Amino acid sequence: MQQRGRVTIPTDVDVVPETLTLMERWGADAIRDCDGTDYPEELRAVDAKVYSTYYTTRKDNTWAKAHPEEIQQMYIMTPFYTAVDGDLQIHLMTHLYPDMLKVNNRDDITRWWEVIDRTTGAVVSTSQWSYDETTGDVTIHKPEAFHSYTVSFLAYIMWDPVHMYNAVTNGWKDVEKQITFDVRQPKTHTYSMERLRRFIAEHPYVDVIRYTTFFHQFTLIFDELAREKYVDWYGYSASVSPYILEQFEKEVGYRFRPEFIIDQGYMNNTYRVPSKEFQDFQAFQRREVAKLAKEMVDITHACGKEAMMFLGDHWIGMEPFMEEFQTIGLDAVVGSVGNGATLRLISDIEGVRYTEGRFLPYFFPDTFHEGGDPTREAKVNWVTARRAILRKPIDRIGYGGYLKLATQFPDFIDYVESVCKEFRELYENIKGTTPYCVKRVAILNCWGKMRAWGNHMVHHAIYYKQNYSYAGIIEALSGAPFDVKFISFDDIRNHPDLLDSFDVVLNVGDAYTAYTGGDNWKDEAILTAVRRFVYRGGGFIGVGEPASCQWQGHFFQLADILGVEEETGYTLNVDKYNWQDHAHFITEDSGDAIDFGEGKKNIFALESATVLRQIDKGVQLAVNTFGQGRGVYISGLPYSFANSRLLYRAILWAASAEGKIHRWFSTNYNVEVHAYVKNGKYCVVNNTYEPQQTTVYRGDGSSFAVDLAANAILWYEI
Amino acid sequence: MQQRGRVTIPTDVDVVPETLTLMERWGADAIRDCDGTDYPEELRAVDAKVYSTYYTTRKDNTWAKAHPEEIQQMYIMTPFYTAVDGDLQIHLMTHLYPDMLKVNNRDDITRWWEVIDRTTGAVVSTSQWSYDETTGDVTIHKPEAFHSYTVSFLAYIMWDPVHMYNAVTNGWKDVEKQITFDVRQPKTHTYSMERLRRFIAEHPYVDVIRYTTFFHQFTLIFDELAREKYVDWYGYSASVSPYILEQFEKEVGYRFRPEFIIDQGYMNNTYRVPSKEFQDFQAFQRREVAKLAKEMVDITHACGKEAMMFLGDHWIGMEPFMEEFQTIGLDAVVGSVGNGATLRLISDIEGVRYTEGRFLPYFFPDTFHEGGDPTREAKVNWVTARRAILRKPIDRIGYGGYLKLATQFPDFIDYVESVCKEFRELYENIKGTTPYCVKRVAILNCWGKMRAWGNHMVHHAIYYKQNYSYAGIIEALSGAPFDVKFISFDDIRNHPDLLDSFDVVLNVGDAYTAYTGGDNWKDEAILTAVRRFVYRGGGFIGVGEPASCQWQGHFFQLADILGVEEETGYTLNVDKYNWQDHAHFITEDSGDAIDFGEGKKNIFALESATVLRQIDKGVQLAVNTFGQGRGVYISGLPYSFANSRLLYRAILWAASAEGKIHRWFSTNYNVEVHAYVKNGKYCVVNNTYEPQQTTVYRGDGSSFAVDLAANAILWYEI
Repeated sequence: MQQRGRVTIPTDVDVVPETLTLMERWGADAIRDCDGTDYPEELRAVDAKVYSTYYTTRKDNTWAKAHPEEIQQMYIMTPFYTAVDGDLQIHLMTHLYPDMLKVNNRDDITRWWEVIDRTTGAVVSTSQWSYDETTGDVTIHKPEAFHSYTVSFLAYIMWDPVHMYNAVTNGWKDVEKQITFDVRQPKTHTYSMERLRRFIAEHPYVDVIRYTTFFHQFTLIFDELAREKYVDWYGYSASVSPYILEQFEKEVGYRFRPEFIIDQGYMNNTYRVPSKEFQDFQAFQRREVAKLAKEMVDITHACGKEAMMFLGDHWIGMEPFMEEFQTIGLDAVVGSVGNGATLRLISDIEGVRYTEGRFLPYFFPDTFHEGGDPTREAKVNWVTARRAILRKPIDRIGYGGYLKLATQFPDFIDYVESVCKEFRELYENIKGTTPYCVKRVAILNCWGKMRAWGNHMVHHAIYYKQNYSYAGIIEALSGAPFDVKFISFDDIRNHPDLLDSFDVVLNVGDAYTAYTGGDNWKDEAILTAVRRFVYRGGGFIGVGEPASCQWQGHFFQLADILGVEEETGYTLNVDKYNWQDHAHFITEDSGDAIDFGEGKKNIFALESATVLRQIDKGVQLAVNTFGQGRGVYISGLPYSFANSRLLYRAILWAASAEGKIHRWFSTNYNVEVHAYVKNGKYCVVNNTYEPQQTTVYRGDGSSFAVDLAANAILWYEI
Repeated sequence: MQQRGRVTIPTDVDVVPETLTLMERWGADAIRDCDGTDYPEELRAVDAKVYSTYYTTRKDNTWAKAHPEEIQQMYIMTPFYTAVDGDLQIHLMTHLYPDMLKVNNRDDITRWWEVIDRTTGAVVSTSQWSYDETTGDVTIHKPEAFHSYTVSFLAYIMWDPVHMYNAVTNGWKDVEKQITFDVRQPKTHTYSMERLRRFIAEHPYVDVIRYTTFFHQFTLIFDELAREKYVDWYGYSASVSPYILEQFEKEVGYRFRPEFIIDQGYMNNTYRVPSKEFQDFQAFQRREVAKLAKEMVDITHACGKEAMMFLGDHWIGMEPFMEEFQTIGLDAVVGSVGNGATLRLISDIEGVRYTEGRFLPYFFPDTFHEGGDPTREAKVNWVTARRAILRKPIDRIGYGGYLKLATQFPDFIDYVESVCKEFRELYENIKGTTPYCVKRVAILNCWGKMRAWGNHMVHHAIYYKQNYSYAGIIEALSGAPFDVKFISFDDIRNHPDLLDSFDVVLNVGDAYTAYTGGDNWKDEAILTAVRRFVYRGGGFIGVGEPASCQWQGHFFQLADILGVEEETGYTLNVDKYNWQDHAHFITEDSGDAIDFGEGKKNIFALESATVLRQIDKGVQLAVNTFGQGRGVYISGLPYSFANSRLLYRAILWAASAEGKIHRWFSTNYNVEVHAYVKNGKYCVVNNTYEPQQTTVYRGDGSSFAVDLAANAILWYEI
């Protein structure tokens, strides 16, 4: 077994000996710097790859200040203001952190700003409003009394949001606020290529340029108290400028409107059913960003270095699951691992030579302080991610932050040492194989592959009351023995036979969001494709408000498949008699209480359905047949080992494959089995922090009992 | 104090002496028969008014069978059926009680039926489907595979739904199923007037013809197991026939479509935002029904009898709160009292000489059986209704059913005796006055006065999980010291200054229902009218999902007034910091736990709002200011004494009148105070079944302590 390699550690000028010790103990073969640290002189000749964080868009205020017109911009919509009598004054910077943003009135505000009457939706004529630079107010002249108004405007990003976040989180004092400049614009473009060459030339000991990241920050805004005000890890609203938008206009052949980005203030977040214009804009950005990134990658290669991209921060437009990404020529992608789903966000990327996961906790004082328990965080992080690694491994693991902080927690150092060993072993055992997949599963929504593994994510791997009951499905799948694809409604429209390549289709989320699809369910092409698929023997699992939109007498358009409907008030007149719970294959491993998370209150079963669980006259779990196929309704399913098992059973049942459950299977749902048939190996993994007993079934249906230590992973030959 | 009068009791041939005893004890001055009882010979000369139930549309099968084409009809939509390959057969009578309905293919089915592709919403050409009378199936020829279809058809009502209900509930054996005939049709019209004259001539001892009712039954359908399948106390779908619909067509000048009634299968229930066509149809029915009812009332009067209408059963089209009703000339209305709101449904009717409430329990074996507790039911019913009587009294009370059953429960007889005395006393004290009203309150929805006091009602006074949290508001108001009006969005559009006549406007219910208003909240005329009203000092109280519809960046269109919004997934990116509960005038009498009923999960407060109560990051109660006015958000408010007080305080606060709370007020919310200034009286009422202590404030702010026995009502002079 390899004792070294596949591990990256951070360093700093004050921890040279500790770095060397840790290299040895963790078997690290790569060392990196971070935001706020410097690479020590003494380690330049170390026997390890050296990564250097490289900021394409910041850390050069001299340039930024000399070219203020090429500072990056973002679209912002003010709050809603209601007119009363007389003119309406709207102060643009209200509730925005003053040092972070600066109103852009350098460009033609009558072209790039928009004042909208939000009571009627009408654009207010530019002759009817004006901006006063001294007060920072837009004045709407003679507005309609008691109409509500917003101003959409452009602002320069005067303090890079990630730099600001790091500075605020770490309490950095007297730090120069790094301005974000726009590499897409002509002067900065030219300058940035020279700057990159210069950086490489000046850092000959560096092996890997770790781009952090490319050109556009995901949307991240702070309020006047420096608190997070708005965050969208997938947000494109900070990737705009008149320079870019004029190019966009030319390409698509229609006139740009700020509202394409502003989207009523919802900023086209991933819950919004995407408009054609926004999809056009994303496609345009993907092409342009890829082109420019390729220029930098080519330079990197020409200078004899590797190019690694950090999947985060200024990653907007890179979209690793889309075609353009493969043209860039990156060597590697590294990303933060928050859980199994975010692991797959990295490990499923194709077209790079290797991927790396940066594990939590980040060595920052928010965790590494007296009384903190970084070991516990590390355990949860590792065990959660390990399920996903066992399905689709990253090639390397790593850590980031201030190494000095980590060294003050010896048990943390010990634990990560064991993680590094465990990772190397499992990587060795599974590399180059596709693990055994029980069934082919498609997640159907508006985004398809572009938001693969990131469904229901707002900020990176962060819990929200409204998303955990749905994100739980994605998390469960990230480590489950299924071949999982993410498909869009357009994919079905473009390839009517697409569903034939799957056993089970899932649609997960709340009504009228992009994750269920909204008005796509009025499209007969979609409805007939899904019904045909299920009728012929496919499975359809709906979670939350699946296939929902009010249309032609139904809220759940696939009520005929799911056997359930939502009571929106329109069918209170209909007597409902189907409330009896039934025992079922799907709930065989569930106890009395199933955790449906937020669940749903007003779901009722149609006559044909079999109710598996109802709570206070609200169906939470039900099954139904439709032709040769089957439908399953689940109200919500937060991630847990028990729910992961429930979903596993639901998929098997939906695929009419319940007879196949005793293949590579553990009777105890806290333990999972993964088989790598090509490599002749399989493993049994205890996902909990306590010992477990279970019976393991092999691929031929034979079984044996086994005891596992806490967190243990046991490897066997087939 | 009057010892007799204002009370009606039922009788039957087997309870003559009991009837006379009860007349004496309860002070009854009217006696009635019921469905399933007969008026005894011996009581024809009794010293009391005699009511005779009169069935205009049934109890004459000879006529009905001789004129099958004039039997009443209803529109029915089949369930949804999904086509696969080949023709699609739909059996019309599936899940319908076979003896109740008979498919009408006597009239031109290509004109009066409609087959609809519910996947596209398109009407299927009549050339593409056929009906086979022998099988009872509609066959759709060459349907689109995997599209879903419904058939809308007409059926004759072969067993009157109320007669069926009574027969099933009482287990009547060998009863002849009464067919419902249609008095609106020409032959039956002529015959019915003769039949009425004959009935009156043959029953000279009858003083009051108690119409039960007029012409069209509210929608009530039973399934193949004789269980209730569909019920809409306000439903118009059983008031149709080609004869009537051709008249409707002529009057409105556009072509009738079955879909106007079918409404995607939702049958225009009161939760649906009403379509123009349905409103036209209701208006047409009101005029025609009133005209025909007047004919009968005129005959009644010409024969020297009183005409009383029962508010229920075949009451559709009568609409007592609409103009047409007043033209009919009825002497009285009697209705069932399920609670305070249904009491006001009767007592608020204008244009009749007197109103009567039929109290519960009805003397049927479902309550009056061994082990039953009719006294408890009677207490709850009386005390609940008494609040409303004290605001707007009915003129009489009464009971119905089998008197024989009631006499077997002596404590019930005793209790009702006390109720009769109490009613006579309170009627004496308050008659002819308007009780003191603290504020003028409007309930705003799509229906306005037509559904006054019946908002959120599905079946008469019946609990539904989805309605009790909203119906609680109406119930609380039915007995509260406010001048309550029900107004519609059209009322505001037609009278832009309408809101000036109110202090507080309420909007109550779930999104996209007629009770909140759906797309009416996209209408700037509505938005500006409400905003103007509040800005100038009015109050707006929103309950559930008030003023909601997805439009221009908001789900709650009056978020600026209410200070709250609903998280639909579109604003998860926005950080929310306003979660702190605050003490407030509104919750001063509330304990730690407020019962919000079903409540709402995903409401968050905007910066300006003051949160009064949040549960698990869901705001349940919040207040906000807007100009000179105020907004209050409540997630739901089931009826209880505590919640009634909370609503009282919310209205006072919304009207900026919290300083006026100590006027005709009880510090203990289980006790209420009603003042009748004109009569120089006020009363203090204990609404509970236990003794209560309280401090009572008079109109001048002076106060005194008082102890009340359970249920007590104490009268004072001002």
